[in-house]
Amino acid sequence: MINSFLNKDVFFKIKEHKIFQSIVIIAIIISAFLIGASTFEINETLVSIFLIADILITLFFVLEIIIRFIAEPNKKLFFKNGWNIFDTIIVLVSIIPIGPNSSVLLLRLLRIFRVLRLISAVPELKELIEALFLSIKRVFYVALLLFIILYIYASFGSILFSDADPERWKDMGISMITLVQVLTLSSWEQVMLPLQKIYWWAWIYFYSFVAIGSITILNLIIAVLVDVVTNQKRN
Amino acid sequence: MINSFLNKDVFFKIKEHKIFQSIVIIAIIISAFLIGASTFEINETLVSIFLIADILITLFFVLEIIIRFIAEPNKKLFFKNGWNIFDTIIVLVSIIPIGPNSSVLLLRLLRIFRVLRLISAVPELKELIEALFLSIKRVFYVALLLFIILYIYASFGSILFSDADPERWKDMGISMITLVQVLTLSSWEQVMLPLQKIYWWAWIYFYSFVAIGSITILNLIIAVLVDVVTNQKRN
Amino acid sequence: MINSFLNKDVFFKIKEHKIFQSIVIIAIIISAFLIGASTFEINETLVSIFLIADILITLFFVLEIIIRFIAEPNKKLFFKNGWNIFDTIIVLVSIIPIGPNSSVLLLRLLRIFRVLRLISAVPELKELIEALFLSIKRVFYVALLLFIILYIYASFGSILFSDADPERWKDMGISMITLVQVLTLSSWEQVMLPLQKIYWWAWIYFYSFVAIGSITILNLIIAVLVDVVTNQKRN
Amino acid sequence: MINSFLNKDVFFKIKEHKIFQSIVIIAIIISAFLIGASTFEINETLVSIFLIADILITLFFVLEIIIRFIAEPNKKLFFKNGWNIFDTIIVLVSIIPIGPNSSVLLLRLLRIFRVLRLISAVPELKELIEALFLSIKRVFYVALLLFIILYIYASFGSILFSDADPERWKDMGISMITLVQVLTLSSWEQVMLPLQKIYWWAWIYFYSFVAIGSITILNLIIAVLVDVVTNQKRN
Repeated sequence: MINSFLNKDVFFKIKEHKIFQSIVIIAIIISAFLIGASTFEINETLVSIFLIADILITLFFVLEIIIRFIAEPNKKLFFKNGWNIFDTIIVLVSIIPIGPNSSVLLLRLLRIFRVLRLISAVPELKELIEALFLSIKRVFYVALLLFIILYIYASFGSILFSDADPERWKDMGISMITLVQVLTLSSWEQVMLPLQKIYWWAWIYFYSFVAIGSITILNLIIAVLVDVVTNQKRN
Repeated sequence: MINSFLNKDVFFKIKEHKIFQSIVIIAIIISAFLIGASTFEINETLVSIFLIADILITLFFVLEIIIRFIAEPNKKLFFKNGWNIFDTIIVLVSIIPIGPNSSVLLLRLLRIFRVLRLISAVPELKELIEALFLSIKRVFYVALLLFIILYIYASFGSILFSDADPERWKDMGISMITLVQVLTLSSWEQVMLPLQKIYWWAWIYFYSFVAIGSITILNLIIAVLVDVVTNQKRN
Repeated sequence: MINSFLNKDVFFKIKEHKIFQSIVIIAIIISAFLIGASTFEINETLVSIFLIADILITLFFVLEIIIRFIAEPNKKLFFKNGWNIFDTIIVLVSIIPIGPNSSVLLLRLLRIFRVLRLISAVPELKELIEALFLSIKRVFYVALLLFIILYIYASFGSILFSDADPERWKDMGISMITLVQVLTLSSWEQVMLPLQKIYWWAWIYFYSFVAIGSITILNLIIAVLVDVVTNQKRN
Repeated sequence: MINSFLNKDVFFKIKEHKIFQSIVIIAIIISAFLIGASTFEINETLVSIFLIADILITLFFVLEIIIRFIAEPNKKLFFKNGWNIFDTIIVLVSIIPIGPNSSVLLLRLLRIFRVLRLISAVPELKELIEALFLSIKRVFYVALLLFIILYIYASFGSILFSDADPERWKDMGISMITLVQVLTLSSWEQVMLPLQKIYWWAWIYFYSFVAIGSITILNLIIAVLVDVVTNQKRN
């Protein structure tokens, strides 16, 4: 009788059951709520309740992965599915460091990744992420181009402006952080205007950077758009 | 004779008449003007004029809904039309609380919703809103994804940065408000730079958040665009 | 012989001649340069040179319009072309107020509109503007919707926040200016955060406004995009 | 035997070999790294190592261009390819000024352009840039239109606001820099609000500028998008 209970089909039925899937989603939401609530100042009673709830949820997540693994008829296929690997790693990561030596901070941080499981639990979100991955190759090359542009301008910036405004242009690293700010057009005039007073040509540096950077990002947006439309037409 | 006057057809003709529809639009605009004007400092004579005008417009709106209701041959269909429900609720909401105990502030706030009736009164605006609702399902899931991303980053932020900058990262709620600001790229360098001075890796947190958040919003824009184009082709 | 010189065909040939068209463009650019240069501090000699150049250019522009008018075989058609009306008004506007009583400031301001003639002189720019006008009807209704949203939020804002932050929310007018700033996401957290400290629900007001406003603007962008693509396919 | 070694085919095989192409990319990356690293404070030993590495890389780049030139069967075609000219100029520019009289600063600046060679070395980046150039004509005319709009508003601004806020509107040049800031919506309310307190109509100036400027930029984005899609369909 136990044997028949442990039958794959039974597990498959559990795994595919709407109630089971809803419980998983609810468990993830409770887990997310616990993480959020523990950032507020809470009294000790709540802390212990949260601790117990956290252990129960961790156990449930382990159980869920085991059920899904047993339910899989072909064990090899289980780890060929990216989402299964995704879920397994997140669950493993949150049970492995339970030991007296592991820092509490790291434990809390690793717990947060559990919220990501909401993506794999809701099919519509899974589709969204899969659609994003279709255009990842294009995004990579445009991001590379953007990095080259940033690198060149940061080189010029740290050579030309390091004396005038060392806090923003001292070296390559700081220059790149400053240029990312300029690229997002966030209070970028506060970066340019002090230099404009010293060097009359400063505006050429900044305007060309903003123009080239914006066109590259525009290129990225259009590339992703064309990819999405092309994929949609194929289906 | 009174019977024939109250005939549905007569009401239908009134309702469909261009002059009637124009009067409704004018009444809404006057109502909007009254709301706007009463936020300025005005003398007492004007206040009483505004009060009378407001009562007249309220009565007119009630009358208009009644005419439209009588004009409808099938009363059940009246409340199956979203725009009729929309108009009725707005009108009801602005007459119900007229009582000695209701606060003046609440009364004034509820009046404001009347301006929304301009949307249901102008067919072109109605179409715009209906077009927006077609892609609401997609928008919901992308918004959910965005919320998950915000939640995860806010969890990390409130754990990692709460000591360094408690005003912005004290707890989950404040962290999320800070991250929404970062997502809109509004003076976000003022959030990052103080943390960057303490933690060398702060830029990874912020850049990854901005990149992932932007790509998700880009996904939203493209999804809506594809939906609109697909719907247009079908028509 | 004079008669034959004044022949329409001759004027038409002049008008269509590449050299004539280039001279017109050069005259507009010189005119633009004069306007720009006169905003700098310049010595008196230059001022008189600029004055003479300005009179010569004004005369040339009058001459050019006359040539184009004579060259037109059907005089009625001349004023049916929007660009001809555009050019004529700009030229008229800059000669009419030459009188002892007209203020120098107004004269200088009216001169600026001449730069706009560059658009009608360069065919590629003309096409760009004509393409923009094709989607003007859609833009109008989305702008109207945006105005309604702004108006409603400004009403709420000036009622709810006028006591807490009168400088930004005193009345309808100031509230709308504040909300336009919020809509452009420019340092909008400086508007929200002080109110957030007083009212815990302030974020709902601001986030809903930003979300609804952004979606409306997104709708505008998509509408224009669809219009442009549809028009391009037709041609 | 030397003759056969110098055979074009051999050079062509070298040039097309994957290992050779990888070495070129690695050399560019090392070169970029040297440029970046030298912006940090480094000790003298490293400075001399960097100097030697820089000379070696310069020699390698010269060698590489020579190999590619010899490998080309038709020497005339070599300089008809834009990317070959691009690479040759960058390499030439970094060897010509090696002389006792050339300034160290200029030398360092010219070295930076080498990083651009990464674009011509990676085929995917080359394609990206080539795609951008396809829509350059459209971009030029929209940029011209944007410049006209900026010029007209800067003329008005420097005439109307130069007394009220000379630091931002003193002359044409400063006004244009201020207006570019307004166009990017970066803290633009700090430009408008002080003027709004003096002139009640200031908002008309700024809102119309932002609206017209945004629509023009939107036009640019759509034009590029349509171009890219049209080109993609053709292939």
